[in-house]
Parts: sequence; structure tokens; C-alpha cells
Amino acid sequence: MRRLFDNINEWKIIQDKIEFDENRLAESIMSLGNGYMGMRGNYEETYTNDSHRGSYIGGIWYPDKTRVGWWKNGYPNYFGKVPNSVNYIGIDVYINGEILDLAKAKVIDFYRELDMKNGVLTRKFVADVNGKKIEASVTRFLSVKTKELGVIKYEVKALNFDGEITFTPYLDSDVKNEDSNYEEAFWVNVSTESSEKYGNVVARTKDNPFNTEVFTICANMSIKTNKEPKENTYMNKEYYSENKIVLDIKKDETVSIEKYVAITTTRDHNEAHLIEKSEEILNDQTIKGYETVLNEHMNAWNKRWESADIKIEGDTLAQQGIRYNLFQLFSTYYGEDARLNIGPKGFTGEKYGGATYWDTEAYCLPVYLGVAPKEVSRNLLVYRHNQLDKAIENAKKLGLNGALYPMVTFNGEECHNEWEITFEEIHRNGSIVYAIYNYTNYTGDFEYIKEKGIDVIVEVARFWASRVHLNKRRNLYMIHGVTGPNEYDNNVNNNWYTNYLAKWCLEYAVNNIKWLEKENIQSVNRNNVDKKELENWLKISSKMYLPYDEELDIIVQHDDFLDKELIKVKDLPKGNLPLNQNWSWDKILRSCFIKQADVLQGMYYFGNKFSKEEKKRNFDFYEPYTVHESSLSPSIYSIIACEIDNLEKAYELYSRTARLDLDNYNNDTEDGLHITSMSGAWLSIVQGFAGMQTFEQSLKFAPKLPQNWDGYSFNINYRDNLLKVEVNKEDVKISNMSNKSINVSIYGEEYKLEDKIVIPIEVNKNLCNA
Amino acid sequence: MRRLFDNINEWKIIQDKIEFDENRLAESIMSLGNGYMGMRGNYEETYTNDSHRGSYIGGIWYPDKTRVGWWKNGYPNYFGKVPNSVNYIGIDVYINGEILDLAKAKVIDFYRELDMKNGVLTRKFVADVNGKKIEASVTRFLSVKTKELGVIKYEVKALNFDGEITFTPYLDSDVKNEDSNYEEAFWVNVSTESSEKYGNVVARTKDNPFNTEVFTICANMSIKTNKEPKENTYMNKEYYSENKIVLDIKKDETVSIEKYVAITTTRDHNEAHLIEKSEEILNDQTIKGYETVLNEHMNAWNKRWESADIKIEGDTLAQQGIRYNLFQLFSTYYGEDARLNIGPKGFTGEKYGGATYWDTEAYCLPVYLGVAPKEVSRNLLVYRHNQLDKAIENAKKLGLNGALYPMVTFNGEECHNEWEITFEEIHRNGSIVYAIYNYTNYTGDFEYIKEKGIDVIVEVARFWASRVHLNKRRNLYMIHGVTGPNEYDNNVNNNWYTNYLAKWCLEYAVNNIKWLEKENIQSVNRNNVDKKELENWLKISSKMYLPYDEELDIIVQHDDFLDKELIKVKDLPKGNLPLNQNWSWDKILRSCFIKQADVLQGMYYFGNKFSKEEKKRNFDFYEPYTVHESSLSPSIYSIIACEIDNLEKAYELYSRTARLDLDNYNNDTEDGLHITSMSGAWLSIVQGFAGMQTFEQSLKFAPKLPQNWDGYSFNINYRDNLLKVEVNKEDVKISNMSNKSINVSIYGEEYKLEDKIVIPIEVNKNLCNA
Repeated sequence: MRRLFDNINEWKIIQDKIEFDENRLAESIMSLGNGYMGMRGNYEETYTNDSHRGSYIGGIWYPDKTRVGWWKNGYPNYFGKVPNSVNYIGIDVYINGEILDLAKAKVIDFYRELDMKNGVLTRKFVADVNGKKIEASVTRFLSVKTKELGVIKYEVKALNFDGEITFTPYLDSDVKNEDSNYEEAFWVNVSTESSEKYGNVVARTKDNPFNTEVFTICANMSIKTNKEPKENTYMNKEYYSENKIVLDIKKDETVSIEKYVAITTTRDHNEAHLIEKSEEILNDQTIKGYETVLNEHMNAWNKRWESADIKIEGDTLAQQGIRYNLFQLFSTYYGEDARLNIGPKGFTGEKYGGATYWDTEAYCLPVYLGVAPKEVSRNLLVYRHNQLDKAIENAKKLGLNGALYPMVTFNGEECHNEWEITFEEIHRNGSIVYAIYNYTNYTGDFEYIKEKGIDVIVEVARFWASRVHLNKRRNLYMIHGVTGPNEYDNNVNNNWYTNYLAKWCLEYAVNNIKWLEKENIQSVNRNNVDKKELENWLKISSKMYLPYDEELDIIVQHDDFLDKELIKVKDLPKGNLPLNQNWSWDKILRSCFIKQADVLQGMYYFGNKFSKEEKKRNFDFYEPYTVHESSLSPSIYSIIACEIDNLEKAYELYSRTARLDLDNYNNDTEDGLHITSMSGAWLSIVQGFAGMQTFEQSLKFAPKLPQNWDGYSFNINYRDNLLKVEVNKEDVKISNMSNKSINVSIYGEEYKLEDKIVIPIEVNKNLCNA
Repeated sequence: MRRLFDNINEWKIIQDKIEFDENRLAESIMSLGNGYMGMRGNYEETYTNDSHRGSYIGGIWYPDKTRVGWWKNGYPNYFGKVPNSVNYIGIDVYINGEILDLAKAKVIDFYRELDMKNGVLTRKFVADVNGKKIEASVTRFLSVKTKELGVIKYEVKALNFDGEITFTPYLDSDVKNEDSNYEEAFWVNVSTESSEKYGNVVARTKDNPFNTEVFTICANMSIKTNKEPKENTYMNKEYYSENKIVLDIKKDETVSIEKYVAITTTRDHNEAHLIEKSEEILNDQTIKGYETVLNEHMNAWNKRWESADIKIEGDTLAQQGIRYNLFQLFSTYYGEDARLNIGPKGFTGEKYGGATYWDTEAYCLPVYLGVAPKEVSRNLLVYRHNQLDKAIENAKKLGLNGALYPMVTFNGEECHNEWEITFEEIHRNGSIVYAIYNYTNYTGDFEYIKEKGIDVIVEVARFWASRVHLNKRRNLYMIHGVTGPNEYDNNVNNNWYTNYLAKWCLEYAVNNIKWLEKENIQSVNRNNVDKKELENWLKISSKMYLPYDEELDIIVQHDDFLDKELIKVKDLPKGNLPLNQNWSWDKILRSCFIKQADVLQGMYYFGNKFSKEEKKRNFDFYEPYTVHESSLSPSIYSIIACEIDNLEKAYELYSRTARLDLDNYNNDTEDGLHITSMSGAWLSIVQGFAGMQTFEQSLKFAPKLPQNWDGYSFNINYRDNLLKVEVNKEDVKISNMSNKSINVSIYGEEYKLEDKIVIPIEVNKNLCNA
């Protein structure tokens, strides 16, 4: 853990000194996004120290030629990357002709805050450039109201001189990815223009040999000043366009510019209209004016918080953590565009940046189900349905039937190239189907199965049926050569989670086919499933081998797991953690240490199939070996820990999840935020502390309260009912803010919730005080 | 199988038409080497079609920066490569000023032969260049007598014209490796010179960030002509030096040049003396003259054959195969230099080229023990002893004690970067110790253990002791996370071969320490082995888990092997083989198919520990699943097949070994020859058909004769006795050519061999006629 910002505020991330050593970490944390585009917390003005300047546009990607040491049959030819794109925030500032370089100027009273309530990043500082002191105030936001718009206001006050301030706002698309495999640039210049107070750059992703889509983007800027400039010139060249605005300034006077930028792309517009469209936006917005544009944006954020905010009383760190997670998650994705998905680093970094992983289905979908209109979640499902053909091709490449969804993708094609992941971490396929179950079960929108879901359900079942093999001696079906969610074990046999999920997928497919047949639905025929195939699926699922140890009475993570040397994390000598930075890979692999929930991921997914005692036995066995070196791990453990009344552990793991990036737990936040695991904090509170479960079309709560909290509350959207859940030291209050009643189970008791229910909180004394 | 050259000769490889489509394959097969240096069968003159020009110098290597998709802790920073070096054979030929380009000229009566008896490559052809016909004869050899010398004689006869022939012999060190990771050149120019009939180029391997040795090489040439030139000019520039010699020619006249090249390097000389040393060689050799130099070279080859030749009667393909293998093996290594080793592709290609693998100890050492003075084999052991410190460092990097010899190396540092191989294919470590056992047991030179061997034996034992773990439940030591010799199974647990070898290494260490203690030898103390450590080794070895299946009564290759889907190779549908070109990697891994001997490798190493029945059961079980997609596989299977009287299978596998490259079995010979597996044919005949075993300081034979052979014979050097073994359809004759008697067991009967023994051949009728 390494907390950079110690000034903790419930709604703000506050940085109260300029950061040189950890600037990249600060840049990650101060990231902004509006779903359409996003950027790291870079400075507008010149900064000549270490920095990772990065801005990214959703859905714009480039297929970077695979780099690999030793080629394995089946590897994809490219790894898709979100290209670091046009620097549109750039504003160089000159004080009497001397450039303001934050790395070199004497900077006093630096203050930066990310206002999460309003989605606004502001900065204030005093800088001394050769004796001339100025006070700068900078405000930036990416509009949630007008997605293609970013706005910056840059104010300078002269503290001890009369003279001139020069602002050079610019656009620069000569930008490279730090993670480019062969140090290539991904952009080519199309055109640039500049005029007084205007300028644009148009760039296109380079042609590639893989025949994937080429994208063109246009960045267009319009500049306003608070007084008439003394000089106003402009210039453009390849990849670059600037304005140069010189303003007279007197001591104690404030001069400012507003930079409006519109980013349009060929994802939404014809290439020929990109400039025109961006001009329209700039015209509309500049006419509205800064205050209006800012207010519209803030109102949109406020509305999101109204339905999604989680309040925690008595624990500012926890409160800030959950809000930061929701803020960054919503900054990445708010479901407006079914062509988009949620990249593990969102718009905040490059490694894994922007591609789609199973994280979306496993960790993010439940949050959107809970806090956003159901269309948001449905769009995530449609995204995968749209890519079914590619998943079928992918399975075929590996000599298998049905569909195998890729580990990492943009357009449905597999990008990743580690055999133990790409070819073997196939449990991901189960999560795609589980998401259909989860969505339809939660929302009641079973029409989705008829319309689209069944196609995915059938093809994934076909995959599993071809991927298992019959062990004739034992007359059981097995799945060899897989990597489970715990990636600290590669190429194992019979990973319980994978086998269980495969078995479930087959049964779920059979049940859905039967249901559709009963309802005489045409979509059955669409997929040509015959009786023989159904019987085969049933045979496999009924004879699926699920490793279990009778003596310990626990599920076994995979064959041979119990043959390992079993050492607990707490017994490891100091200096060994994190393992992934201290141990060679083979040592990690043969060790018993678990990177992220594996058996417990299964118990989480199928929480209604296992008793509390079973969960407790397995949690107590596996948790001591778990190092949580995946950001996706602690939330799941925290949820199970709550359920088995281990509240202390649950709280410890919640903290790790909720402040993963703010406290840089994994020592890698400088590369970007862990966006998909941002959902974990929400899950930990709602499904963990509040014990919300929605299996079998029912809604259950079993709220608990961590000892050091005074209370917490959140809203939840369940089947078009908006509920408010409030928990404090005394009682649990659930209010129904919609006008129809709903059945709710609380602590196992059934209630008909009309207006509200208040019952005393159930406290497990043994464990809460442990 | 794809045989390029159909004209089969016992002593020659004959190519009787020019090859355009498969030129790279032809170049590989026509490779020449003299242990010091070697080259592919490229043409001297211009050839503008596809070709891989390659010449390599033993021990000269460059650390090429690692290329990897996903970095794993513990990966080495570089992969050592033998840099493709100076093109010293180049001679451009002009006919009346028109260049002779073999890719474009009309070429008639092309004939090339590799004379293996004499180590000479010759070519003859008629070429028509714009109506001017010439007949060319080209002879090339790399002197075995004078290792730094290469000689070419190029003769041209005018068939239908009077005019002029221009020869432009040149040296060119502007050469790149095809397998360079980042398309970098490995050479920088130091100096070049030229003068009438002379020229040299000096180049140095580029500085590297890994602080490995930098090498400088000098190529110096001296040209002789058979008549006074009409013109003689010269030129040099960076990386390049040439002479231009114009000779008048009349119809039916023959003009010729001799190009002598000396290659000196900083491995043997001070950089300042490289040119001088090479001039000395050129002076000496040109004074001797072409015929003398050639004869000295041929005599040296003839002498090698006198002791090493294997004669096969009645099977020209087999005869050519075994000679080709010995020829290429000796061209790569004949033990003159303990700093050198045997690269898997020798001097014939780049991939894996020139580095040291466990192949040397496992497959090559026995051949040198049998056919070369014992110093040759001893040098191979000393090579590893010299690298012990680096092996200790290597183990340390992986968090382990003792020494782990690298998978791939030049100077002892690990080069390879696939976790499943680099970190997990640790059985290689056992072969380093087994080689000490093999060498000392075969030669009787136990002094070697005292002098050097014990250091390696102890450190490898320490490695195993730290690499095992105790499975407390079963109270057995296990080795998890390994890759056995069968690389079609990665990251398995308890590979029987690895566990057995580890157990043996520990016991062998204990026995040697005890022996040294008894003899009161100081080298015990040198390694600080105390009683407690010895006891630990004994405890581990006595409780080592060795997977066995009682029901099938076979050794189990590794945990879970028998859970696989067991399909026999013969039952695979057509088009699946070779698997490594048709299946995705995960499919290969989870299949039961075996790339190379694994359990059987252990039964081969420890042939005296297993009964014929045990071998038969295990062979019969594993052979049907073996695809032999490693060149190192068929020989071991062939040897066991002989022992269990499956002569038909033994012969089939022998053919595959002996003609692997000549018949391009693995469809990759264009990349270079499989040098280390060249030993397999010798092993198959001597240890297989002739049944030679040398366990426990005894010498045993049990000769068998493949049905279609009339007989075979070979010499063997055993403890300074030179024996001749002759086998024909009637009897087995073993002659002792030294002047002391020796005990020999033949078919299990003990004999005292004075002069010779002749006994009838034992024929297993059932199997020989199968």
C-alpha cells in the first residue's frame, strides 16, 4: 500500500502538493472520462519531467502486430490496442515571453482536486517564473451531456508584475503508444487547419495487414478569451494546429481562455463530415457559454449519483473509496453505446487498455444491473451476441466446435498470445452465458433469450461438449489443460470452477431449449439442436468430474492441488509479497498461492447451490493461501466472508478493493486504473455487507455492518422498482420508492414491501467483535 | 518424408539437377564444417533466387536482446546466437563481362556431390550466358588439418567461344542473421584491406548491454590463378574487400582460380595479430599448394573414418544415412576445443544454432565415447564444469539452491525464454550428472570425479533437494511443475523420468561422497557436504514418489497422464500429422501424444535397472502414442525395440533417425540439419542392433540383424581397446585389435576376448519375420 494523497474527502480526491516522483501515479488517479472518451490527469501546460500523456477514445483501436518469443500454433496475428490519441488539452503558457514549465518553475501552493460529484478536475497554484509570480486556476471536464465535447478554462492572475501572458492552445496528434510492440506510430496525418481562435487536426489509424477497420478522428478547437488579445496568430503543420494569443495583464488582473474541443470520429460520422460535425458542436456549445455547458455536465453527474451513490457513515476512507470506484467506472462506461465495452484500464492507461475481458460479465454487469437502466446491461450482452460468429471461428481455429469467446478482444477476434491464457483460460466462456442468466434472472427480461441469448447459449454448450473428454476408466468427463481464474496455476487438469461452469452451461442450454420448445419458439430451430445433441449434453453434464476431497470435505481447486506444499500466506517470510514481483514464474506456479478467487468464484456465482457451512469450509481452507494479486479477487472473498459472518476479514478485503488504486495496493496504478475491478467495492457493499442475492428471480437481503461504520445506504434498481437500503447500528430500513409492491426476503423472512420495512439489524456477536 | 536427392550412393550425397524450389533444403544438406567453422551449401557465384547464405564460426556468439510477448519473472535478458559471419566463399564470375547468375543462366548438366569420405564438396555444370557456353568445376573444403583454412578451386572451360573470364573473389562481412530478434546487424566493421591477389576484412561483434565477450574475426584471402591475368585490380570498402581478375580464354581452354581463405578470431589470438596470423596461414598453405593441402585434409577425414565408420551391407539407403550422420556430427565437433560444444544445428542454420543443449550429454557423448579418444568426451564434461558458477547463479535466480544448468547456453547463462521450458524442463540437470556417470563408467577414468566431477554432482544434488517438496499427506517427495523430455506435455506434476533421475542424482551424489571419504580425498571438503545434508539426500531419494499404475503394470509418465483420452497415433485421421504443424498448442498439450522418449528415455539411461519384460510392457504401452516429432526420439525407441525383439519397429525407427535430414522427415531441414540427433543413427546400430551395453563397468553385446540387411560392422573404442564388431546373417564376430584381452558378454555369456570371438547370431524368429 502506498497512499499518495493523504487529504481525504468524501467527494473529492485532493492533491495538495505537486508530485514529481510519482507523477504517473497522480496522473492515473486524476483521470477523467465520459464514456465516449477519457484521459489521464496530465497538465495542460508544459511539463518536462516524467509523465505519461494519454488520451483515448472509446472503440477506436489498432491491431498491433503480435510480438512473441516462441510462436505457438493458434496464436493471433495481432494484439488490439487503443491508440493514445490527439493531445487536445495542450495549452502552453508564457509569462512575459518565458514558458511556464511546471517541472522547472518554482511552484507554490499547488492544489488539485477531482470533484467526483460534479465530474470536474480543477487546479490552482502559484508559480514563480524568473521573479514574475502568477496564480493559475485551471478547470477541465469531459461533458457527460455532450459526449464529443471537452472544455478547459485556464485563468492566470498576475501577482507582482505588469506585462503580458501568452496562451498557446494547441492540438497535437503526433502521439505514440508506450506499449507499441515495435515502437511504431499508429496514426497518420490526414489534414490540419488553423485560423484565428480555431484549429483542427484530422488523423487516421494506419493501414494494417489484418483488414480490421481503420478509424479517422477529428479534433477541433475553439478558443474564447476574457479580453481582447493584443496579438492573435495561428499556425498549423502535419499533425499539429495552434493558436497564439497574447494578452496584456496588469498586477492583480486575471486573464483567461476557454478551450472548447470537439472530438468526432468515423465510428459515428462519415469521414467527409468530421470537421463539419465538430464545428457544429463547437458553435452550439460556445453559444451556450461556459457556465451553461459546465452546469449541464454537472447536473448529468448529479443525476447519476442520485440513483447510484452509496453512503457510508463513520468511515471517510471507505466512503471516498466507493465513490471513486463508481466515478471511474461510470467515466468508462455508462451503457450508451452497445458497440463499446469496459476495458480493464478504461481510458486511463495502455496496458490491456480498452479491450474487452470476461471482467465485464463477471464483475461489472451486476453493478449496472443494480444502478442503471436495464438497457445498459442488455447492451453488454448484445455486444457479445454481435461477436458470436468470431467466437465460432475462434473455436474452429483450436479444432473445437461451438463458440469460444476470446480472452481479449475488440471486434470479437482473439488478441492475446500466451498459450496458457489464450487457449486454456476457457472458463471465460462460461461467464458469457452466466451473464445471460444473471441479466434475465435479475430483470425478468426472458425475451432476450428468445431474441438473441439462445444463440450464445447453444454455441457455448457445443464448445464444452467438444472440449471435454471421457475418461473411460473412471467413466467421467474431464477437462484437461485449462487455466482457472487463479492464473497462478497454469495448464491444470479439472479445474473445479471450469468443470462446474461447463456442467452448468450444458444444463442451462438444455433447460432453455426445452423451455423454448414448450413455448414453441422458432429460435430453437434457428440453432439446429436435435434430440441427440441434447442427450449428449445431458450425459456430459451428469457425468462431469468435479474434484472433491472427502477427508477435508472441501472442493479441490484442480487435480493435484492438494499434493502441493501447503504454506499459508501469513507464514511467508517478509519480502516475498507480492509474489509476482519477487518470485520466478515457475515458483509461483508450483506454489499453493492463489491469485484470485477460483473455487470461491464458483461459490459466488452459484451462491444458492452451496450451504453456508460449505462456503465456510471452503473459504477457511482457501483464503489463507490467497494473495489477492489480482484486483478482481478481494471483492469476491469479501462477499463470501460476509455471508459466513467473518466480518473482520470482509472489511479488510473491502478496503483493499475500494482503495486499490487510491492506495496503490498492487503497486502498478501508475500504468492506469483497475477499472473493471472498480465494480468490486460496490459488490462488496451491496452483495457483501447488505447480503443482496437475486437467485431464482427472488430478492434477498441480509445486512451486516462493519464494526467501525455507523451505517451505510444505497439505492438499487430491481425489476423497475427503485429501492433504498439503509443500514445503521440499530436497524435495517428498506424503502420502496416506486408505486408497486415487491416481495423481499430479509434475513430469510419474506416481506411484501409496499412503502418501507424497518427491522432490527441482526448482529453476529462472535464475529463482529472478533 | 520428402527426399530431395534420389541418386543414392554409399559415400556421397549426389544432387544431379539444379534446385530452385528447394534450394534452402539443398543448401542445408550440402553443409560443410571442420569443427572450427562451417557453412551451408551456398554457391560461390551469384545466385539471385531464394537462398540462405550462412557461415558460422564455433564459439563466436552474440547476445541478442530477448523478444517476448509477456515477460515472466526470471526470464533471461538475451538469447545467444551464433552470428552469421563473413561470406568468404564469394566468387563472382563474368563471361565476356556478363555476370554468371545461376538463377538466371541456362544451366545444363548440373551435378553436385558431397564426398563424405574425403570431406569435399564439388560441383560441375554447363552454363549458357547469352549464347556463350562454359563448363564450370568448383571444389570446396574446410581443412580438417588446418582448422582456420577454407579453400575453393573454381575452373571455367569455354565451350563455344574465345573471350575473357572475369573472377571477382571477395570477402563480405556485411551479413545479418535471419533470426535476429529486432532485425539488427551483429557485426561492426573494424578494417578492410585489398591488394593484388590479397584482401582481408576484420569485423567485431557489436557492443552489447549484457557485458558478454565481444569477438573480432579476420577473414583473409589469397588468390592464385592458373595463368597470368590480363587485368588484376582490387578494391575495398567498409565490410568488403575484392579482387578483380580478368583472364583471356580460348574455346576449349580452362582457366581457374584458387581462393585460400584464413579465418582467425580473438578466441585464439590477440586482436592486433589477427591479420598477421591469417597471413602466416595463407603463406604456409599457398606454398604447400592446392594438391597437398587437399590431400592433407582428405587424409585426416580418412583417418576419422578408419575408426568410426559403420558399414551396412545390403541397404544403400541405410548405409548412406549413417555415414551422413557421422560426417555432419564430426564436421560440427571432434573434441579439439573444450570451450566448444555441439549446437543442435551446428554450422548449418541459425534457429537454436550453435548453443549448447542437454542433447550433447544425452545423445552425442556416447558416440564420442565409442569412436573418439576419451579426451574428446572429457572435454564435453569439462565444458559444463567450467560453467558451474553460472549454473549456481541460475538456480539462485529461481530461488533454489545448488546448480541448475541452463536449457540453452553459450557461456553458462540461460538464454531461453519460455517458462515451461526454461524454468521447468529441469530434467536436463540430471543429464549433466548422468554424463559424468557415463563417461567415468565407460572409460574407467574415475579420477575425473575427484578432480572436477564431484563439484557438479554435489551442486546438482543440492538443486534437487531444494526443488522437491514433501507431500505430507502421502509422506512422499514430489516434483511439481516440470516439463519432461516429452515437450508435448508442459507444466506437469511428477514426471516419472524427472523424479527418477533426481532420485538417482541424489543417490549417486551420496555414493560418490562416501567413496571419496573412504579414499580420504580432499575434494569432499571442497564442497562442504556434511552428514546432515547427506542424510537429507538419502531421505529424499528413499521417499521419492514414482508414479506407477498397478492395474496396467506400467510406469506412469506423470500424474494424470492416464486420465487423458488415449488415442493411438495409427487411429488419427489423415492430415493431423505432424501435430506441431496442424494442431493448436493446447490441443497438443492435452492429448496423449508423445513428442519424444520420456519414460523410455529413463529406461534407456538406466537400462540395467529394468527387466526386458518391464521394458516391453512400457514400450508397448507408450510407443503407440508417440509421434516422434523430436529428432531425438526415434533412436531411443529403436534401441529399446531391439532389446524387446521388435526388430521391425526398430528398423522403421532407425530409418527415420538415419535419414531424418536426407529425407526431410520433419519438414524443417531447410532451416538447418539436426546435428545433435545425428548421433541417433550410431546409437541405434551400436546400442540397438548390436545391443552394446556398458553398465557397471562391463561390456555387453547382443547383436541382431534387421531382415533386409546382409550385415553390418563397426569399430568401438572401449577403455583403450579397439574392437571390431561384425554381424552377418550367420554369425557375430568380435575382434580385439589391441594387444590386451578384455571381458565381453555376448548374448549373456561371458567371454575373455583375446583375438576374436565368432558365435552364431541369435535370431528371434517370431519377431524378425513379423
